[in-house]
Amino acid sequence: MIKVTVWNEYEHERTDSKAMECYPNGIHEYVAGFLGSDDIEVRTAYLEMPEHGISEEILQDTDVLIWWGHRAHNKVSDEAAARVQKHVLSGMGFIALHSAHHSKPFKLLMGTTCNLKWRSADRERLWCVNPTHPIASGVPEYIELEIEEMYGEQFDIPKPDDIIYLGWFGGGEVFRSGCTFTRGNGKIFYFQPGHETYKTYHNEDIQKIIRNAVYWARPSVKRGLIPCPRFESLEKTK
Amino acid sequence: MIKVTVWNEYEHERTDSKAMECYPNGIHEYVAGFLGSDDIEVRTAYLEMPEHGISEEILQDTDVLIWWGHRAHNKVSDEAAARVQKHVLSGMGFIALHSAHHSKPFKLLMGTTCNLKWRSADRERLWCVNPTHPIASGVPEYIELEIEEMYGEQFDIPKPDDIIYLGWFGGGEVFRSGCTFTRGNGKIFYFQPGHETYKTYHNEDIQKIIRNAVYWARPSVKRGLIPCPRFESLEKTK
Amino acid sequence: MIKVTVWNEYEHERTDSKAMECYPNGIHEYVAGFLGSDDIEVRTAYLEMPEHGISEEILQDTDVLIWWGHRAHNKVSDEAAARVQKHVLSGMGFIALHSAHHSKPFKLLMGTTCNLKWRSADRERLWCVNPTHPIASGVPEYIELEIEEMYGEQFDIPKPDDIIYLGWFGGGEVFRSGCTFTRGNGKIFYFQPGHETYKTYHNEDIQKIIRNAVYWARPSVKRGLIPCPRFESLEKTK
Amino acid sequence: MIKVTVWNEYEHERTDSKAMECYPNGIHEYVAGFLGSDDIEVRTAYLEMPEHGISEEILQDTDVLIWWGHRAHNKVSDEAAARVQKHVLSGMGFIALHSAHHSKPFKLLMGTTCNLKWRSADRERLWCVNPTHPIASGVPEYIELEIEEMYGEQFDIPKPDDIIYLGWFGGGEVFRSGCTFTRGNGKIFYFQPGHETYKTYHNEDIQKIIRNAVYWARPSVKRGLIPCPRFESLEKTK
Repeated sequence: MIKVTVWNEYEHERTDSKAMECYPNGIHEYVAGFLGSDDIEVRTAYLEMPEHGISEEILQDTDVLIWWGHRAHNKVSDEAAARVQKHVLSGMGFIALHSAHHSKPFKLLMGTTCNLKWRSADRERLWCVNPTHPIASGVPEYIELEIEEMYGEQFDIPKPDDIIYLGWFGGGEVFRSGCTFTRGNGKIFYFQPGHETYKTYHNEDIQKIIRNAVYWARPSVKRGLIPCPRFESLEKTK
Repeated sequence: MIKVTVWNEYEHERTDSKAMECYPNGIHEYVAGFLGSDDIEVRTAYLEMPEHGISEEILQDTDVLIWWGHRAHNKVSDEAAARVQKHVLSGMGFIALHSAHHSKPFKLLMGTTCNLKWRSADRERLWCVNPTHPIASGVPEYIELEIEEMYGEQFDIPKPDDIIYLGWFGGGEVFRSGCTFTRGNGKIFYFQPGHETYKTYHNEDIQKIIRNAVYWARPSVKRGLIPCPRFESLEKTK
Repeated sequence: MIKVTVWNEYEHERTDSKAMECYPNGIHEYVAGFLGSDDIEVRTAYLEMPEHGISEEILQDTDVLIWWGHRAHNKVSDEAAARVQKHVLSGMGFIALHSAHHSKPFKLLMGTTCNLKWRSADRERLWCVNPTHPIASGVPEYIELEIEEMYGEQFDIPKPDDIIYLGWFGGGEVFRSGCTFTRGNGKIFYFQPGHETYKTYHNEDIQKIIRNAVYWARPSVKRGLIPCPRFESLEKTK
Repeated sequence: MIKVTVWNEYEHERTDSKAMECYPNGIHEYVAGFLGSDDIEVRTAYLEMPEHGISEEILQDTDVLIWWGHRAHNKVSDEAAARVQKHVLSGMGFIALHSAHHSKPFKLLMGTTCNLKWRSADRERLWCVNPTHPIASGVPEYIELEIEEMYGEQFDIPKPDDIIYLGWFGGGEVFRSGCTFTRGNGKIFYFQPGHETYKTYHNEDIQKIIRNAVYWARPSVKRGLIPCPRFESLEKTK
């Protein structure tokens, strides 16, 4: 059983009519809805909860944390962001969706600005450039999104471990839309689609990619930070 | 002309007799001494200076910052560390020497703990595994260091852009000793040798690697953070 | 069920008394012996068989091919080597053991000389530098091999996708001992230990790494070469 | 002085009126024309010459080989292709232009099919995703090509060392259009634009990228294959 926590700032879906229409109970509940299964147990959390719903206890009990945020990044406390970073380095998987590129935990893990170009309401085609990666398993070679927010290069991230998806936008841009990173014992997947006023997460291939990413990102070693020990020489240990 | 600032915490060399013997005027002055040349202009800075010697003005005027620190990492202010990070992302080169792996600016740029195994007083052989990289230019395929502090794997860093040197230690360990990273517009080189009580920086091949790294890390684009603009679509710009 | 074919040139174990003692029925039978299980079905093949035991039919029916060769690389026909390359590009996993670095199929897949330094009879310590990779799952952070052939850098291979193991040798060398590569739809693992006159493959951790590699390298997409189609534009396909 | 040889199959420009109009003396002469300078000495060669104009003597005297081929790949002898591969592994730079992705030397160096999707006559926008790489120096963040042949993913190449350009095509595709590889002591740059019936090489930014690539790819170590020596242990060499 993989324990997933889906975190959402949950602001747009309570104030913006288009977002409400797409995700009436919030993006977190929608994502939880399609992820939950025999071997994935999902809880949700959002900004207004005590400790933003991601207390030390919750994170210790989370195998993979999914993060969606857009306009309220600065409302997340520095303590909570540092806690997420620590748990990722300890082995918790982390899936950063859409504008989570600018979230505090993601930026702490990347070390860069994570800036990019952007524009509303474009067409997107997501191309797989790494078909043998587990995250792309069972997904067609490209996915059409009739409407999505444009995110374009230069995307200020460290060189990814793997680039799995490249995004093509009708207005003339490209983007490294699906990227993996390893930090400490933790696996990270950034995935660009998912603007709050479009029904991107209703797309079954998008759902499949996120589900694949949950399996891929789950902890594979005993949770804990990589240590910093004084180490005996071979001669002494013999 | 490349403007280099060599930063040192400058604590050991004023209190430890062995370090004083190796580097009587401090590691910063020693490194500055072998780097200065017709096309490299060097200034030095250390912890006790106002703003640790790395004010906004100094960093704006620095092409490549070399950093040496060991036991006083926590005395560096968070503001100064964030300032260094910002300038690296803007294009300033950054060379992190030896125990600078645990310095605040390096950890901010990596996003990980940068932990490792360690032990005093071992033999090291540094092997080049990337001979065509500019940082290895003109350096023999391996360098013997009769005595050096052992740093061993698991080294908790993101996957480097390039691994140029692997360290072999007599006591049975290996280490990714010379690694490059790109963050924003900035180039970073981490180089493991250089414990304060050994004469590692007196070695001419070690000096050559650091000099090569200065040339490699100098800014190659106009200084500035990668921006985050709203971007017009191709149709509108035509 | 994963179908594995273990290929061996099978020369040393019929002529060299030390090799016969370590692997009386050949390395292929020994590897097959520890791999076979409920979900891994193993067949063996060797040089003297018709078509070297790796006909088109056999390779089509093979999910992962394990290759051991040392002194008889040139006895493998160019046709057989090209056939292996084609099947790897089509998705068959390929595990190249020890001196298979100089085998024809491996060199075709790498495009380089795959040269390295070597010496008999040294001690080795294999360090994991990528503990979250599936190939390292359940294996301790290092493995001691009391005696092994030394393989040292410079190892003339393309930059690996992932370096999972670094080898330390008592005589002063290091080596990228466990490396992965993706070529076409195929996954490749090169693993350095396994000289014919030492009992390396009797080591349970070495066995575990090879078993992990079999699971990792099995085909993840429908077998076939990546195609080269004329492709309709988006406008026409709408 | 960098010695460059520009190789071209030189077939289209003698039979196709559109290609003749774009490159009346052949693509090789056109590329030679814009490359030649105070520190770049250029010679040209083409398929019909004895030994295709790339004899052992010529390659020994070549620092960087530029290759353009499209429909006559199979007319290049296996010997010539192997000779180019050997010289690249020995340190000669290699710049593969446009449909040289399917040339014999490039495929030998990659080990894969190098297949891709294609279509005539599309618009392209080339985006830089690695602005600090020397190959991108002084070039704007994107380049518009009003007409170019579409090359689209999945591009069957090994993971590049660096992706410098991503191509966007009006018809809905993306491509890893500018990629670097290291093989042995040689540096390789693949660059997608340059169909024979379009004036792509007349574009000054395209010219600048190729010129930058020449500087980047020139040999940086003494020419020669990485060797395979028996190596003495540290104990014996002391």
